[in-house]
Amino acid sequence: MSKRSSAISVARVRGELRETVDDRVAVEEPLEIRLGFQQAGERLTRPVSITMRTPGDDEELAVGFLYSELIIRSPADVAIVKPCQGDNTIRVELEDDVDVDLERLRRHFYTTSSCGVCGKASLDALHLMGAEPPESGTRFARDVIISMPDRVRRAQAVFEETGGLHAAAVFTGDGTIVAVREDVGRHNAVDKVVGALFREQRLPASDLGLMVSGRASFELMQKALVGGLPLLAAVGAPSSLAVELAREFNVTLVGFLRDGSYNVYSGEERLTA
Amino acid sequence: MSKRSSAISVARVRGELRETVDDRVAVEEPLEIRLGFQQAGERLTRPVSITMRTPGDDEELAVGFLYSELIIRSPADVAIVKPCQGDNTIRVELEDDVDVDLERLRRHFYTTSSCGVCGKASLDALHLMGAEPPESGTRFARDVIISMPDRVRRAQAVFEETGGLHAAAVFTGDGTIVAVREDVGRHNAVDKVVGALFREQRLPASDLGLMVSGRASFELMQKALVGGLPLLAAVGAPSSLAVELAREFNVTLVGFLRDGSYNVYSGEERLTA
Repeated sequence: MSKRSSAISVARVRGELRETVDDRVAVEEPLEIRLGFQQAGERLTRPVSITMRTPGDDEELAVGFLYSELIIRSPADVAIVKPCQGDNTIRVELEDDVDVDLERLRRHFYTTSSCGVCGKASLDALHLMGAEPPESGTRFARDVIISMPDRVRRAQAVFEETGGLHAAAVFTGDGTIVAVREDVGRHNAVDKVVGALFREQRLPASDLGLMVSGRASFELMQKALVGGLPLLAAVGAPSSLAVELAREFNVTLVGFLRDGSYNVYSGEERLTA
Repeated sequence: MSKRSSAISVARVRGELRETVDDRVAVEEPLEIRLGFQQAGERLTRPVSITMRTPGDDEELAVGFLYSELIIRSPADVAIVKPCQGDNTIRVELEDDVDVDLERLRRHFYTTSSCGVCGKASLDALHLMGAEPPESGTRFARDVIISMPDRVRRAQAVFEETGGLHAAAVFTGDGTIVAVREDVGRHNAVDKVVGALFREQRLPASDLGLMVSGRASFELMQKALVGGLPLLAAVGAPSSLAVELAREFNVTLVGFLRDGSYNVYSGEERLTA
């Protein structure tokens, strides 16, 4: 029983059979991230994101999001992280010397002023922001990759209850799971994992792979890249732009990881027998 | 072969077997929606959304998004919808007499100035914006509901190629599929379907149910509600807030619709033997 899931009565129908059963659903609630920072001698506070998330690990979610958006680079940038005005707002106060480019945050990664809006511009924007191929000699055994979905699922407490949560996990080359987080949104689950690594000063994490329970989108690939992780493995399909990003920056991308098989779209040299 | 999927070479690994095969992945590219409107005697243009989507049906996506966000209410509000500056920007020009509340768009549905940020506020915001329970005597046979996932999947051209696209479909009480759209993002697939109905002046669509291939989040439930659709059926799990919204506004919510069974979370009276 956690506030991550809630009890509910539901009608279960199978053919002619209908019964009322007690069940649990994954909790979804909005979270606002507010950023406090110094600009031109003045202290400002701005809401930078509202996301629909599953409560829990909210502080990790907030700092993981800000790290992935290249707003903060190390725990030394952050003065205070704490809930404010109830359970659904997190305030992140930066140290005075941290430069914040809110305009970049607004534009996100999808457009550049020079190229307009397209997949190519999305990759160019990452180059312009200084993203680099992960420096990593880390290797991942095929058996480790294949074992990961079952092992991550067993580590998911709330999925068992509700069937309704995505998972993100980070793991070493020999298969040790370093962190697992759950959320109704895949991108939130990844931000929580990145936030956990951030707080432990483990970023960039050139020794870790990232596994996600759903598909591999550009957004998730970008979070792996910014975190310096050399591998992203997804249970579902990758998108075209996720593949392009992986190849451009030499991140290992594994898709359709299920039932003992997988596809490799990029960086196969990091996978060993 | 469509620009919705692209060809790719991939390493397929199963146990000891590794082979290089030709495959296809779903295309993901950013789309910017720009809104042109009249305010205080001046013509303004503002970017209102950038979404990562699969190309195709972009004009439907744009008007469906604006309808779901309560910015436009009927085709008479819209003067022009057309691509501009390449393939990844859609410009929607409104008629001069349409009032636009961009602040509301920025705040989205998740916060109100009175209540702050929480699930309850998200529901209150929908009330404040005039959302009402769907007026609908429409009934859906259990057999129709159970048949829908297989029938929608057969109608998904690009999923077959890539395994990587979500689907949204609208259907009548007797099981006629009115429209199916695909996208890497579930919310985009729903916006495309809503946009298709909008252009045919079929909204609010009190005679139609909406099916989605993934989970039922608050956001998807909200789009069904704003479109006046009395039923949302999802292959995956619903979130707590989707259930709350469904119950508050008496929308029928079906989840875990797969393998001949489903759960009903709200509005069971619309389902008949």
